[in-house]
Amino acid sequence: RPPSAYGRPAAVLVGVTPNLSYWDSIYSDIHSHLKKAIPIRDPISVFEPMHHLTFSPPKTTASALCVAACEVVGGNREDAIVAASAIHLMHAAIYIHDHLLLSDRVGSEPGSEISHRFGSNIELLTGDGIMPFGFELLAGSVTVAGDNCEKILKVIIEITKAVGAEGMASGGEDDGVEYDRSSGQPSRQLHGCGAACGAIIGGGTAVEIERLKRYGVYVGKVQGLLSEKRKSEGAKMELAEKWRALGMKELECFDCEKIEQISTLLRV
Amino acid sequence: RPPSAYGRPAAVLVGVTPNLSYWDSIYSDIHSHLKKAIPIRDPISVFEPMHHLTFSPPKTTASALCVAACEVVGGNREDAIVAASAIHLMHAAIYIHDHLLLSDRVGSEPGSEISHRFGSNIELLTGDGIMPFGFELLAGSVTVAGDNCEKILKVIIEITKAVGAEGMASGGEDDGVEYDRSSGQPSRQLHGCGAACGAIIGGGTAVEIERLKRYGVYVGKVQGLLSEKRKSEGAKMELAEKWRALGMKELECFDCEKIEQISTLLRV
Repeated sequence: RPPSAYGRPAAVLVGVTPNLSYWDSIYSDIHSHLKKAIPIRDPISVFEPMHHLTFSPPKTTASALCVAACEVVGGNREDAIVAASAIHLMHAAIYIHDHLLLSDRVGSEPGSEISHRFGSNIELLTGDGIMPFGFELLAGSVTVAGDNCEKILKVIIEITKAVGAEGMASGGEDDGVEYDRSSGQPSRQLHGCGAACGAIIGGGTAVEIERLKRYGVYVGKVQGLLSEKRKSEGAKMELAEKWRALGMKELECFDCEKIEQISTLLRV
Repeated sequence: RPPSAYGRPAAVLVGVTPNLSYWDSIYSDIHSHLKKAIPIRDPISVFEPMHHLTFSPPKTTASALCVAACEVVGGNREDAIVAASAIHLMHAAIYIHDHLLLSDRVGSEPGSEISHRFGSNIELLTGDGIMPFGFELLAGSVTVAGDNCEKILKVIIEITKAVGAEGMASGGEDDGVEYDRSSGQPSRQLHGCGAACGAIIGGGTAVEIERLKRYGVYVGKVQGLLSEKRKSEGAKMELAEKWRALGMKELECFDCEKIEQISTLLRV
């Protein structure tokens, strides 16, 4: 395992705002972990698309939230990297199959054509391979002594609920927050899951896990809203403001110091 | 949980060969478990296709092997039903997406048109939902005391290896048995996995797990071979005979009595 980017000397940060460096260092840790976990190896016909399609989707805050939430409850960043990587893999699998659906969509908007580096059959099967690989990474991260076994199983359950039929069906309503379906890409739902998984791994209490999960849900909602094209700017800003406030409220039970970094996702 | 069909009074078996009743009772237990786990409920648009597509694929011996292998190593049938159900769900997810690929295939053989009850987008997303649901069932089957935690994680790893990129890539070669790709549907690979999972749940030793896994691989190979259309009957029978003998050899370390039922899959 490479030294955590979190411990970089301050000199590297010159000219970068502290927030950006915090999140960037998390993305970099997740990226390094996944790069080692999915090398391009034989048979190339399987692992080249798998490698490419794992890293081509845009980064998701959902996986970064996992690491940040772990740190909020006092856990070690390194312990959360596997769960964060698994969440990135779920995001990638969802993104790849969404991509397939969009490219097949009848009457898609002009200018919205989707380019495919691989054939649609390869993209279908690679998405199918990436998802179980996320669970494999998690199940394989149990220590020899087995003392994190229960946490890992809880994380697996959180993730399956977010990506499975229940997630598709509920659109997040059962998290206790109202959800605007029109603004929700499926992978937005991973935000609440990501935060919850980090809090579980970090050893948070049931209340802390629940609070951070809701905070994550609001992060996903605000992101979805802001990327929404059909709504007027005014209405969007008003709703975003409301959700930001609700999200920040979830963090109130934590020490100010501990939420300094995670709260930047909703603080304007 | 309904009483295990294994314990049915002998009178019910009149007119049925003992073998058939053994396997039928296993399928029936798996079916009942899944039917309860996936009720048709709101929102119907998600759960109706999920229910339908879970049960429409043909039954797979892979899930039955899981239960039988558990019994061979002295475990209780009830303990293996969740893992067997998860294996059926993987089989269903693979089958649904294979179905999608076949129906899109350019130049598919005449008469091989595939009928779709749901749109291809629904089939894509439902397959995506069914797979994580299998892992959810497994992770949720850990007892309150957590004493089967390690077994469940081992089962999750077996399954992810069979259905993930590794399974797609290896085609089973790493099981130590030669594999004929042309005869292998992806879900055939679940047979070795199914037997291994049952042996793990049943508390088998490492050697017993390995032996039963290989036995399962041979069952999958023989089934794949016999459904192969392009090979001559003579060549098929010769190869099947060889694989049957190799498969039966894997069972030699067990008591004759214990393998009475499981061996019927390869005994002619």
